[in-house]
Amino acid sequence: MAYELYYWPTIQGRGEFVRLALEEAGAEYIDVARESEGIAVMMRMMEHVDHPPFAPPFLKHGETIIGQTAAILLYLGARHGLAPKDPAGGLWTHQIQLTIGDFVAEAHDTHHPLGIGLYYEDQKQEAFRRAQEFRDDRVPKFLDWFETILGRNPSGDSYLVGRSLTYVDLSLFQVVEGLSYAFPKATRRALKKAPRVAALHDAVAERSRIKSYLASPRRTPFNEEGIFRRYPELDG
Amino acid sequence: MAYELYYWPTIQGRGEFVRLALEEAGAEYIDVARESEGIAVMMRMMEHVDHPPFAPPFLKHGETIIGQTAAILLYLGARHGLAPKDPAGGLWTHQIQLTIGDFVAEAHDTHHPLGIGLYYEDQKQEAFRRAQEFRDDRVPKFLDWFETILGRNPSGDSYLVGRSLTYVDLSLFQVVEGLSYAFPKATRRALKKAPRVAALHDAVAERSRIKSYLASPRRTPFNEEGIFRRYPELDG
Repeated sequence: MAYELYYWPTIQGRGEFVRLALEEAGAEYIDVARESEGIAVMMRMMEHVDHPPFAPPFLKHGETIIGQTAAILLYLGARHGLAPKDPAGGLWTHQIQLTIGDFVAEAHDTHHPLGIGLYYEDQKQEAFRRAQEFRDDRVPKFLDWFETILGRNPSGDSYLVGRSLTYVDLSLFQVVEGLSYAFPKATRRALKKAPRVAALHDAVAERSRIKSYLASPRRTPFNEEGIFRRYPELDG
Repeated sequence: MAYELYYWPTIQGRGEFVRLALEEAGAEYIDVARESEGIAVMMRMMEHVDHPPFAPPFLKHGETIIGQTAAILLYLGARHGLAPKDPAGGLWTHQIQLTIGDFVAEAHDTHHPLGIGLYYEDQKQEAFRRAQEFRDDRVPKFLDWFETILGRNPSGDSYLVGRSLTYVDLSLFQVVEGLSYAFPKATRRALKKAPRVAALHDAVAERSRIKSYLASPRRTPFNEEGIFRRYPELDG
């Protein structure tokens, strides 16, 4: 039974964290909103199901509908060997994903500090100030945390958890991709102090299924509608 | 074996969602940072454990350390009958909690739209604009979602999930408490359109363990250091 992924069709956004897990798992899935009439189907689903997600992305698998990126990955991770089987390891993996989610939300707020009701162009001054703190304080703080937990992984620093890939390695790869697109100068500087994070990013990019995915038309290029946007004035 | 909760001792903040679950469960716990030297203990823990949390709150239970509010509640919910036992129900409950977490982050951003590095006083103008969107668009949108899922609960609209209390009912209670403190006028208006949410809030406040907790010195009053702050200029 194929998974159905529901997400905005023209951006990577939060849906991309789910796509990466599905691609690495080699799972069959339909990216519903990219099909003809798909957005209308997505909007109807959100209106009419018993467990309506607050926002995309959400995943349908048989009768189960799951919203919230981290909850979707919790579900997929357990089904596809992309998370430890023991409860404590699974919870630690999930905790890392939740922290990645916080980081992603802050990345988004750099271009929309006053909220999503206004265009970027109407909050450029404020974005400039918010981005400065993000680049100077928040990116180093988050990357340092990832660097630390890689260094403390008793199975070695190749993966965030245990001795094999989990969904949080894919998610951290995606965050580094996004930061490198949005803030190329600041991210290059920050990654010099986080060599394990940089190495993990590069290793994920070379995994065969991820490599094919990234080269395929299924990988939407970054653009200025998503979470990670390249506004050169916001880079340091 | 008592739980150890680690969180800033002088605010409700995100730790309060954990406290409410522990109190409703009647669980034995130590609010470590409220003890003498407790903050120093908390800071050392964050530095030195194998699975360091990115930020408080975190919970220690035996050898297990769990960070991220939603992950802590996932753990406690399963242990104390505060979540459905079936996986699909547990995941739906968790999804609701993650959405509450998003709502709470937006509530925080109303007074710190430019980031946490500046005082509120240095971003008052921006806070005014962000709060306006929050009050006018975001609060009604989130409350409408909670109202909808209460209405669609096949077991009735007394609880968010199933026919008995889960940790998300406690969390939604806390959000309504916080909004009512920070934005009393806007929240009163919004709750008129969300009568099921208002009724759930009132019912939680009357539960015997919650009622004793709220009347106890363990419940810190809201103040202008936490997530929900009363700045009258931000209310509508």
